[in-house]
Amino acid sequence: MEKFKVGIAGLGVVGSGVVRNVRSQADLLASRSGCAFDITTIAVKDPSKSRDLDTTGIQIITDPLQIARDPEIQIVVELMGGTGLARELVCESLRNGKAVVTANKALLAECGEELLALAASSRKPLCFEASVAGGIPILKALREGLIANRILSLHGIINGTCNYILSQIAQTGASYADSLAEAQKLGFAEADPTLDVEGYDAMHKTIVLAALAYGFWIPQNLVRVEGISRLQNEDFSYAKMLGYTIKLLGTIRSHDDGAVEAHVSPTFIPRSHVLASVGGSFNALSVRGDVVGDTLYYGRGAGSNPTASAVISDMVEAALALSGGVALRPCATHSLYAKVRPFDETSSAYYTRLSVLDQPGTLAKISAVFAEHNIGISSVFQPKEHPGDFVSLILLSDRALERDYRGAIATIERLPVVSGSAAAVRVEEFES
Amino acid sequence: MEKFKVGIAGLGVVGSGVVRNVRSQADLLASRSGCAFDITTIAVKDPSKSRDLDTTGIQIITDPLQIARDPEIQIVVELMGGTGLARELVCESLRNGKAVVTANKALLAECGEELLALAASSRKPLCFEASVAGGIPILKALREGLIANRILSLHGIINGTCNYILSQIAQTGASYADSLAEAQKLGFAEADPTLDVEGYDAMHKTIVLAALAYGFWIPQNLVRVEGISRLQNEDFSYAKMLGYTIKLLGTIRSHDDGAVEAHVSPTFIPRSHVLASVGGSFNALSVRGDVVGDTLYYGRGAGSNPTASAVISDMVEAALALSGGVALRPCATHSLYAKVRPFDETSSAYYTRLSVLDQPGTLAKISAVFAEHNIGISSVFQPKEHPGDFVSLILLSDRALERDYRGAIATIERLPVVSGSAAAVRVEEFES
Repeated sequence: MEKFKVGIAGLGVVGSGVVRNVRSQADLLASRSGCAFDITTIAVKDPSKSRDLDTTGIQIITDPLQIARDPEIQIVVELMGGTGLARELVCESLRNGKAVVTANKALLAECGEELLALAASSRKPLCFEASVAGGIPILKALREGLIANRILSLHGIINGTCNYILSQIAQTGASYADSLAEAQKLGFAEADPTLDVEGYDAMHKTIVLAALAYGFWIPQNLVRVEGISRLQNEDFSYAKMLGYTIKLLGTIRSHDDGAVEAHVSPTFIPRSHVLASVGGSFNALSVRGDVVGDTLYYGRGAGSNPTASAVISDMVEAALALSGGVALRPCATHSLYAKVRPFDETSSAYYTRLSVLDQPGTLAKISAVFAEHNIGISSVFQPKEHPGDFVSLILLSDRALERDYRGAIATIERLPVVSGSAAAVRVEEFES
Repeated sequence: MEKFKVGIAGLGVVGSGVVRNVRSQADLLASRSGCAFDITTIAVKDPSKSRDLDTTGIQIITDPLQIARDPEIQIVVELMGGTGLARELVCESLRNGKAVVTANKALLAECGEELLALAASSRKPLCFEASVAGGIPILKALREGLIANRILSLHGIINGTCNYILSQIAQTGASYADSLAEAQKLGFAEADPTLDVEGYDAMHKTIVLAALAYGFWIPQNLVRVEGISRLQNEDFSYAKMLGYTIKLLGTIRSHDDGAVEAHVSPTFIPRSHVLASVGGSFNALSVRGDVVGDTLYYGRGAGSNPTASAVISDMVEAALALSGGVALRPCATHSLYAKVRPFDETSSAYYTRLSVLDQPGTLAKISAVFAEHNIGISSVFQPKEHPGDFVSLILLSDRALERDYRGAIATIERLPVVSGSAAAVRVEEFES
């Protein structure tokens, strides 16, 4: 039995889960991996805060960098969040020859390339399974299980807050504001939900997924992000009528020319697709490999225990690497891809909702604009509404370039028969 | 770049897929793992057989044991099937210091303990990701991703042939015989389908899954197996009416006393559960860990490319282990569990269909028998049928011991108001 001394920075929901489960699963971890973990030190912001956790025998400190400098500690677990002090902690720990485990997607999205290079030059493991989709071992699947596959596409429901809110709206017809408030009450959303609902958290995770799938770190400013706060309730109803459900997807896709697209977008997906049945705060990722075909991974993407499950599996990974048994393959950087396709040049089918004058010729004018932009229309649908001058018109387009579609919409919004702005949502059919 | 010489035994559907994809993905494998594979030798039964595969530069032989004895070969890939010669090949290869990759679940179910012990004493890797659920990296998930979890239960759709047939019957109302014939025509079923439709293939895989989850190899005679050939079409209709669908599940579950249950059973599952939406020849496994909660893995469980995807990921695993980088952790044997709960002492809810006399008092007599055996009835349903002396009666029971349920059914079948045998299928509600 090999024993590893561990220091943890951050004792919030995840940190407490790690401490609790490292203890309760000690016999299991020993039996399966031959490793034992001794959590010697935990850095917290406020040591006086009362916690529902027995920390007897653990040194509680306030400066996380002390962990990086403690010669006794072999594995540093970074669960502080943020990109300032957390970056310092990770870098200094690696430089001091420690293995690092982190759940910090924001840090990876910003400094992944630098941190992985540092880990490689230090010949120490940097593990980050917990940074994406909590307890679902998706990074391991991409990196190892699917190593023989070019990843053609990946569509991920990777933000539990958004999925909870979207599921609530779709199921109960509640408003966005009420669903968000409900999510906050249940602990699925933060007091300031911006990072989640505007898609930035999903963007960070999308960048990590792309790094595993394509061997390079996409700069954050090249990932187009749209959140869920501007979706309207009526679009959920129309989605349902048309056989779809709306999910916030992190999407990555490779193209024949080696370019990679990456974006976070609310997306109509067919109700018959497995992703559509992923409700509440669950996460799921649909991965298409060129050899394996379609695979899917589902589970809890957040929360104390699910995230701790991933952190602890990384601690074992780190321990085995330190004891010389496991190769350092956190994320192979290579140049098989390394080019980002601008969002404008990606293509999709689109759902469009317009408010239009209820008079003959309206559809002809709108169709003409789509045709001028080389966009086919696969279906048109006019919901029965209270009569009035303006009524809703729903269109589903064929696959088109984002640039062409946006051009068409801009022109259509200027038509005299159209009032206000169009509602536009991508549609993913998952064709093979 | 490290180059590994590989010998393959068996050049059927999977073997050809491995050869093809090792070539086409060479740059990817090199970039991601730093490994290159040189397939030097392939053993086949009939070298004169014409194959749609370029084998230029590969030595084609007929005696697989020659591969085990070739001092040049470092990795042996066993894709012959069977438990005789295949066992010899695996054992001799390990004894001669080679890494072994196999997709042979029958071999593992029969000799897993022996083979893994031999691999451990030889300090060489024995990898078998492809033996269960084809391209889905489920063994890696159980062994590594979920290492911090006691596996509370696992329910797997792990036989594509059965799932194809069951999906066909449920969707089209076709007979079992016609659905089987269709599966055979499409290549989803063998000419002799017994191994698949009677559940033995799923049993082999269930044993492998249990070994990973619980650290010991359950003897085959302790795994109760029921196939799909005796299901009646009307039970699919009633399943649907009641909100269920019928799947063949490999089930493993741990109990508080450390006992493990393992069986293969046709099972009613709620149509709202993600497993219910797994159609056609796809596989999926729902895994409940005590830390991570519910997770699910989905993909193609068979076929040339999906299985090759898993075989090749194992070849990389083996290569990294040979080059000293990866710990040998094929399947930790331990004694945290190691006791099998007899099938009679497992519990389930049950669907029962009886043919009964259409007269007052019939239900009272039947209910009385269930009550005597301590079995609650959660619902009773009498489908509208052509009137006659005997009509169908459908009952759903609460969770009960298999022994009690079987006792009740035996008594009920002897009641004068009941004609013929009962149809009985387990019901899994996936309660948390």
